[in-house]
Amino acid sequence: MVQIPNTPASLPPAQRSVPTSADVARLAGVSRATVSYVLNNTRAVRISEPTRRRVHQAAKELGYVPHAAARSLRAGHSRMVLMPAPAVPLGPLYSQFLSDLQGALGRLEYTVVLYGTGGLHGDAAARAWAELRPVAVIVPGPGIGPEGVAVLKRSGARAVVTLGPEPVDGAHALLMDHEAVGRCAAGHLYARGRRRIGVVVPEEPGLRAFSRPRLAGVRHALRDTDATVTVLPLAYDEECAARLAARCRELALDGVFAYNDEYAMLLMRALQDDGARIPEDTAVVGADDLMLGRLLRPRLSTVHLELPSGRDLAELVDRAVREPGAAPETHTALGATVVHRDSS
Amino acid sequence: MVQIPNTPASLPPAQRSVPTSADVARLAGVSRATVSYVLNNTRAVRISEPTRRRVHQAAKELGYVPHAAARSLRAGHSRMVLMPAPAVPLGPLYSQFLSDLQGALGRLEYTVVLYGTGGLHGDAAARAWAELRPVAVIVPGPGIGPEGVAVLKRSGARAVVTLGPEPVDGAHALLMDHEAVGRCAAGHLYARGRRRIGVVVPEEPGLRAFSRPRLAGVRHALRDTDATVTVLPLAYDEECAARLAARCRELALDGVFAYNDEYAMLLMRALQDDGARIPEDTAVVGADDLMLGRLLRPRLSTVHLELPSGRDLAELVDRAVREPGAAPETHTALGATVVHRDSS
Repeated sequence: MVQIPNTPASLPPAQRSVPTSADVARLAGVSRATVSYVLNNTRAVRISEPTRRRVHQAAKELGYVPHAAARSLRAGHSRMVLMPAPAVPLGPLYSQFLSDLQGALGRLEYTVVLYGTGGLHGDAAARAWAELRPVAVIVPGPGIGPEGVAVLKRSGARAVVTLGPEPVDGAHALLMDHEAVGRCAAGHLYARGRRRIGVVVPEEPGLRAFSRPRLAGVRHALRDTDATVTVLPLAYDEECAARLAARCRELALDGVFAYNDEYAMLLMRALQDDGARIPEDTAVVGADDLMLGRLLRPRLSTVHLELPSGRDLAELVDRAVREPGAAPETHTALGATVVHRDSS
Repeated sequence: MVQIPNTPASLPPAQRSVPTSADVARLAGVSRATVSYVLNNTRAVRISEPTRRRVHQAAKELGYVPHAAARSLRAGHSRMVLMPAPAVPLGPLYSQFLSDLQGALGRLEYTVVLYGTGGLHGDAAARAWAELRPVAVIVPGPGIGPEGVAVLKRSGARAVVTLGPEPVDGAHALLMDHEAVGRCAAGHLYARGRRRIGVVVPEEPGLRAFSRPRLAGVRHALRDTDATVTVLPLAYDEECAARLAARCRELALDGVFAYNDEYAMLLMRALQDDGARIPEDTAVVGADDLMLGRLLRPRLSTVHLELPSGRDLAELVDRAVREPGAAPETHTALGATVVHRDSS
């Protein structure tokens, strides 16, 4: 095997005291193959109970832990499911979804790895993920193209699942239709008699992938009606919210879809402090159906999102890993319904 | 090398079309060593520009991606920093801390991997982490003991950093003093003249590691005073909050430290709906200093937590990786100060 200098060169050489399966074999007085059979619990090979015990005893004594990378090199694949870690702090809804998904994949004996990219995008990110040789990759949002999918598959990934607005060639798709969220909110405001409608678009850059289709959904729903749509950029702080509330008053907006509940709570407070009556002067609708929205007075109306269940997604991944040749599946995975409370 | 059957046995055999560095070497007409030198950007070896270009061209043509596991097997270590993924959904404060840490470690060329354990605890979890041969492990909360640290170190981890209430033998420690949060809140309520003080303890089990020391801090601060402490278990839903508000009235509690801002917002609303004037009848203090607490009326008093900066923690990890023999460092890393608003 070729000897490669450590990368980066400044690291000291590794300590060589890490026990290997050869050490275990020597101590137990068996072959390395037997060690592997015993520790990987291979049933195809019959090994006597005393030998098994001797191997386990030796492994314990030496503190030997199998090496997942070596095992995956031999097997040609790992049990690693990779997801890029989100660049923005998680909302409670997505955070819960992620916990569920990790639990469900764990029960199917996959190891979930959230990859913190540190600024890599698109195909460069896909190449970095491929270096870890994951058996499956789940990409939330529009973070990968057909070329990236191909790189991953060439590197041994059996399944790539995207959770974006559109399917990507070669990948399974759970379509997250964020336009539906905007359509839903706009339809509700229109039905409540609102005609001068504002749409909050967060200035935080990581949220654009979601805010753009939500805005498009509003425009779509109100096309060919007598309603107007005004885009309202908002950074998540109180000062900006106060300025935006004043602007809503000047423009005489009578309804606002505020991107999500957190932005809605921020803007609703600013509107109230600016003297607006909610919902008489201005109706406010959020999205995500957070518990906190119910604690406000008036209670916040919202769009309830139905994310795919972690279990369903885990089962899709497992199916795809077992049948890597099957045609990519496409499912629509984001349900959106208005929860009408007191703010609209 | 011993041939090990795939685990689990039900997976179909891996497709063997994954291009290897040998394929790149063949196409470029150079040795595998040269391919490795070029693609790992090794500066210790001089290789001509045309040869470099030929190797890059061949790698591109074949869609070859280096194999991180193979590289780490050769080098004896990886650039992987492993963190167990939290079992409970992240709060916004911790979620932001995690984003910062991932960014900072990414800039130091580490790959951050959040490991979804799926129910493993203590030393069993440490063994599972060790199988991935991380170069460093960061354990938030009290999730590892000295034996687990030893397993990781024997498996090649150069640094283990704990973010718990107490140092662990063999590991670097950023001490998170959650007792200080409780002391701080209790001292504030006492100074505001409150003597019958309730402490909310979330019933959600994943939060116990934080709620227990916070409660202990309250008891500690009020020991040898004329104040009483009542423990108030609370599940995070409106019905439980309504029942607890009635109980606060019956017990004539005049001050509540509500674990964090989310529980405080929930309870404060229930107290208001139950007819309590805040803060005249009951003062309420949360913790975490969330923006949303400022949007309520009255504005929520809170304990502001100062988590360690992601950059400082990343630098501690990097230092420890570079000097694996150095004595473990211990730093106190959680600052706590009261932010007095209108609810107390």
